[in-house]
Amino acid sequence: MKLASYLLADGSPSYGIVNDAGIADAGAALRGKYSTLRAVLAADALAELTEAASSASPLDPATVRYLSPITDPDKIICIGLNYMGHIIETGKEKPSYPSIFTRYPSSIVGQNEALICPKVSSWFDYEGELAVVIGKAGRSISEQDAFKHVAGYCCFNDGSIRDYQRHTTQFWAGKNFDRSGSMGPYLVTADEVGDPDALTLITRLNGEEVQSTSTGDLAFKIPEIIAYLSIVTELLPGDVIATGTPSGVGLFREPKLFMKDGDTVEVEITGLGTLRNPVRAEA
Amino acid sequence: MKLASYLLADGSPSYGIVNDAGIADAGAALRGKYSTLRAVLAADALAELTEAASSASPLDPATVRYLSPITDPDKIICIGLNYMGHIIETGKEKPSYPSIFTRYPSSIVGQNEALICPKVSSWFDYEGELAVVIGKAGRSISEQDAFKHVAGYCCFNDGSIRDYQRHTTQFWAGKNFDRSGSMGPYLVTADEVGDPDALTLITRLNGEEVQSTSTGDLAFKIPEIIAYLSIVTELLPGDVIATGTPSGVGLFREPKLFMKDGDTVEVEITGLGTLRNPVRAEA
Repeated sequence: MKLASYLLADGSPSYGIVNDAGIADAGAALRGKYSTLRAVLAADALAELTEAASSASPLDPATVRYLSPITDPDKIICIGLNYMGHIIETGKEKPSYPSIFTRYPSSIVGQNEALICPKVSSWFDYEGELAVVIGKAGRSISEQDAFKHVAGYCCFNDGSIRDYQRHTTQFWAGKNFDRSGSMGPYLVTADEVGDPDALTLITRLNGEEVQSTSTGDLAFKIPEIIAYLSIVTELLPGDVIATGTPSGVGLFREPKLFMKDGDTVEVEITGLGTLRNPVRAEA
Repeated sequence: MKLASYLLADGSPSYGIVNDAGIADAGAALRGKYSTLRAVLAADALAELTEAASSASPLDPATVRYLSPITDPDKIICIGLNYMGHIIETGKEKPSYPSIFTRYPSSIVGQNEALICPKVSSWFDYEGELAVVIGKAGRSISEQDAFKHVAGYCCFNDGSIRDYQRHTTQFWAGKNFDRSGSMGPYLVTADEVGDPDALTLITRLNGEEVQSTSTGDLAFKIPEIIAYLSIVTELLPGDVIATGTPSGVGLFREPKLFMKDGDTVEVEITGLGTLRNPVRAEA
């Protein structure tokens, strides 16, 4: 099942199921009860969502503006340096623990929305990633139980302002510019994804492939990540875990390759669709 | 004005003004309109809060359980290494930019609530700090205008699990353990605080003074911090900025001094009261 969040033509937020006929809007029937997809996940109400969507007449996707599938996550947790290829390109070795930072929801837009290249920097880099969305709350989750807590998966672009990221040891400043990253086009439920360790992830800038990997190259696998994070804090339904980017980022190319006004960036993952965003200069 | 958030005796959340007579509860009249103090700040409705509180009969503070004054901040932004004394004790020099990380609201408790020393570590350290609470939204705020965006100030304990903080270069894991930090006892509005650069901050562990500084020793001052953060992201009413801790943390003492079950930790700042928390082992 492919779950999307969006603004309807009248500007009101809703959510539904993306299928061949278009979008089966479930929000019209359910938003009074569950304000967002996160609330649907928290209530374990996907069956109710399916039922509501089954009686909806299809929306034309061209009439909606996509939001991040999870519009109001409690946490967006990002793993840095988590593909062996990317670890090698940054000149490091595999670390003992996952390297973790946070993005605010204000830094993330949905499908087709513009990523904003800020006035203060021209070092605006792409990072194609596989994102995991939590479905069931848990603390101190074992690796064995980790997948029981996963609702589904999504393409993610951890857009980064590289000079700000390097201002200090902490990545915060480079990772939290408003509207600098994206997530979508939809959340695909885990039952449709198969083995998340055997997906192909491709990032393209203006149609040129710039990153390509199997998710099998992840240094810390999804169960290890969930186990580690949940030692620290309770994971909640709708929490987003961006699992890290593979090699090929613009910063480590010769010459460097950054995103600029007029570009289009795409992140495509097997079974998860293609997350596509234009890049625009800050107004 | 001293603004507190708390649970009433019946367990329902509310907020009000702390004064000599006790707590003048404003939430009873206003919670239908403004669900939290953050919503009051966002609506610029402190006059309405004062009016509502003026007709309330005083609550006995002993009957409430304090929450963090801002229970639902959009962001808790922490500045690392920001007192010259602490920079020197960690063996570093004054950096060019403030070092920034994020805490989740789930890591922060209110006055008198237990800080939880997790099972996985005994390296649980205190960090007394001055927190700034944003009152008025803004992006790219100039240093000259910074104080116009401040609602008030608060004591903050940036409790840190030091071994987890050192797992990687990113501080996330050491700074986000559930219920490992605190904020309170109340938010004091800026008009009552005077010069925030001339306050005395003292941290005590079991009554012994372990940190003592003037906020004038901050390496990056509040206007510089607000200007820098707001280049990256829009600051919103209720956002919390913890400005960093002075020297004297337990990690750099010889022998090391960490918090354990049964301890009491206090952070006292001129005019902002004393934030006091017992320390309890994880159940």
